[in-house]
Amino acid sequence: MRMYDLIMKKRNGEILSKEEIDFMISEYTAGRIPDYQMAAMMMAVYFQKMTQEETAALTMAMAKSGDMLDLSAIEGIKVDKHSTGGVGDKTSIALTPMVAACGIRIAKMSGRGLGHTGGTIDKLESFPGFSTEISSGHFLDQVNRIGISIMGQTLDIAPADKKLYALRDVTATVDNMSLIAASIMSKKLASGADAIVLDVKTGSGAFMKKEEDAFALAKEMVMLGRHAGRKTTAVISDMDEPLGFAIGNALEVKEAIETLKGNGPQDFTQLCMELGAQMLLAGKAAEDTKQAYDMLRGVIESGAALRKLAQFVEAQGGDASAVYDTSLLPSARITEEILSKQEGYVEKIVCDEIGICSLLLGGGRETKESTIDLSVGLILHKKVGDYVKAGESLATIHANDKEKLLLSKERFLCAYRFSETRPEKAALIKGIV
Amino acid sequence: MRMYDLIMKKRNGEILSKEEIDFMISEYTAGRIPDYQMAAMMMAVYFQKMTQEETAALTMAMAKSGDMLDLSAIEGIKVDKHSTGGVGDKTSIALTPMVAACGIRIAKMSGRGLGHTGGTIDKLESFPGFSTEISSGHFLDQVNRIGISIMGQTLDIAPADKKLYALRDVTATVDNMSLIAASIMSKKLASGADAIVLDVKTGSGAFMKKEEDAFALAKEMVMLGRHAGRKTTAVISDMDEPLGFAIGNALEVKEAIETLKGNGPQDFTQLCMELGAQMLLAGKAAEDTKQAYDMLRGVIESGAALRKLAQFVEAQGGDASAVYDTSLLPSARITEEILSKQEGYVEKIVCDEIGICSLLLGGGRETKESTIDLSVGLILHKKVGDYVKAGESLATIHANDKEKLLLSKERFLCAYRFSETRPEKAALIKGIV
Repeated sequence: MRMYDLIMKKRNGEILSKEEIDFMISEYTAGRIPDYQMAAMMMAVYFQKMTQEETAALTMAMAKSGDMLDLSAIEGIKVDKHSTGGVGDKTSIALTPMVAACGIRIAKMSGRGLGHTGGTIDKLESFPGFSTEISSGHFLDQVNRIGISIMGQTLDIAPADKKLYALRDVTATVDNMSLIAASIMSKKLASGADAIVLDVKTGSGAFMKKEEDAFALAKEMVMLGRHAGRKTTAVISDMDEPLGFAIGNALEVKEAIETLKGNGPQDFTQLCMELGAQMLLAGKAAEDTKQAYDMLRGVIESGAALRKLAQFVEAQGGDASAVYDTSLLPSARITEEILSKQEGYVEKIVCDEIGICSLLLGGGRETKESTIDLSVGLILHKKVGDYVKAGESLATIHANDKEKLLLSKERFLCAYRFSETRPEKAALIKGIV
Repeated sequence: MRMYDLIMKKRNGEILSKEEIDFMISEYTAGRIPDYQMAAMMMAVYFQKMTQEETAALTMAMAKSGDMLDLSAIEGIKVDKHSTGGVGDKTSIALTPMVAACGIRIAKMSGRGLGHTGGTIDKLESFPGFSTEISSGHFLDQVNRIGISIMGQTLDIAPADKKLYALRDVTATVDNMSLIAASIMSKKLASGADAIVLDVKTGSGAFMKKEEDAFALAKEMVMLGRHAGRKTTAVISDMDEPLGFAIGNALEVKEAIETLKGNGPQDFTQLCMELGAQMLLAGKAAEDTKQAYDMLRGVIESGAALRKLAQFVEAQGGDASAVYDTSLLPSARITEEILSKQEGYVEKIVCDEIGICSLLLGGGRETKESTIDLSVGLILHKKVGDYVKAGESLATIHANDKEKLLLSKERFLCAYRFSETRPEKAALIKGIV
């Protein structure tokens, strides 16, 4: 088999066999197919697309290219959750203890943030002492003991995807549905859960700007999960404005804690309930959505979800008292209100830009090597549909550097659009696939 | 300017500016754009094509990427000739002395053969002592003195094309009309002639199998030449069966010499006359085709063309007596007739296969590093339309190795197709652009 022939085949619109895709991925991972051939292949795929069978073969080949996490030592149905990422997306922090408190086994691997979207590991590190650099043994044991653990990507999970994504990123071959779906799902399949609930975001702060693209990606990923024998569901949710009010690592953790106390923002609480219900159904802890909602409300009202978070933080070396006293979490030295210069209804918040405001404060990574300031960020006071008077505060900015604060504030004001008439509020949940 | 943005632009069907193409080619040649980005770009070009303006900009950028040969020290109009290559294509050997004998200045760079098509330099080296490794000074001086010189590619002509072609060759991005035309024309433009006559081959032994593709390529190249201010003409000629009877370096030289004596094969003679006429017109040595034909016939009948070849061979260190006594050219130890097993009209000769027969005998290069045996090859006795009886000789094979002879012979027999009815003979000259 020669890579040249495979490029030619795909270029000419023919279908690659499973054997050909296996060959391509294993040889590429081993460094025996050069980047330039793979780059030509990726561009050919961009134009000629991949069939469902090809995409499934690609996903499995990448999933098997490195370590496959074996969760069989954990009893019961292990349910994983994945978000395609957005601004203010602290879902895992609140959702996983909620679901774990309902009896679902959470054995999850998470990543760090890059660019304007945050990462679960960074957020969790707001708890002093918390570490996700734990051994597989510790990880499995902790899930069996308390029902929840989140580990960093210490294993060599889907190295083919890592290498291929880095190449696509510099060759303008990222935005192809099959390649995006295969990239996400290869990592999820290698992570070993029995069931997967996907949160596919759409809107100005999401990777998929258009709702139809988000649905297409959701369908593709659900197909790939089921093809690999995993129960897979996708919730398509709005990311046209930030989720909740808090943006920034420790600020988001505080908001997640408030949510576990029953005082969370309406949109964020709704999303946790919806995703939680799908996880309970996938894990067979509930028979229908109504029962699932009742269970989730129950663990919030009883305080069981909050206690589960504390137990989880402690099990991974963190200071659990910060769960009950959030003043122990990192906080910024300077806070300042961002006052509106205009009057009217908030018509639109350019979501990406709000993420960049947090990045400018030092709360995000510009490159993989950047260190981040967990304490900085923003608390929004006005969201789409709210009426704002001139001089009223749009948000509180939390900063440690005056210059960064100014830069961020300026950018923030440009991200808000006003209108004289009250805009239609977009639905948070667009659908379930 | 970033290569990433240029790939994205082309991928999305937008047009690259001259500045963008200049940037891309100069940075790629300098090694500051990696192969993987260029490979993605080439595949995007394959799908989205290039406009005439883009192709012209690419051609000029590649032409200027290295040395540009300055022929201004030579008086008169310098006319170059280029063939897209084929089997038995010894045209330059006969044509250039014919045209030079008519007063046209031939200052030509040539290459070696690769694969199943031969190269002019290899053929010329059949003359003992002949060398194309001459200095630019020697080259220019010789053209001024005797009107003809052919040098090897000792200068750094169009290095961007060399690098880009090598990349396209391994990424399945060769067959795009703009890229093929730009590749050929960038070298021709850098070679400095005032006028260019192109011989675009079509048929089973040509790069362009289909006649319409050959015409399209011809038009594209003529446009590029004229765009650069060079008088450019293309002759589209048949390569569905080998040209003439001889295939193999020294054998082809002998046939070219016979042609200069007026005893050449009908098809080969006709092609030399047609290309020669175009060169005389381009060089303003003749006013019309009829006058050009008369001049060309004249230099054959008078022996002036043959003497020009001898003068040319001598000027580059070769044994000119071999022009008059071809037994001094390399000859193979073994000759054997290939007898037909079938009876009927020759319906088709799979031209590529005949080239491979010569390659198998040792007469061609498998890789750039191979050394070749100048003496081996084939003399065809039957061409398309000829009637053959079983047991009659189809060709004489010239070999130095019994095993290679057997391999070649076996392959040869499979390249001939017979029919009971006399097939239509294809026209040699398909048109002029």
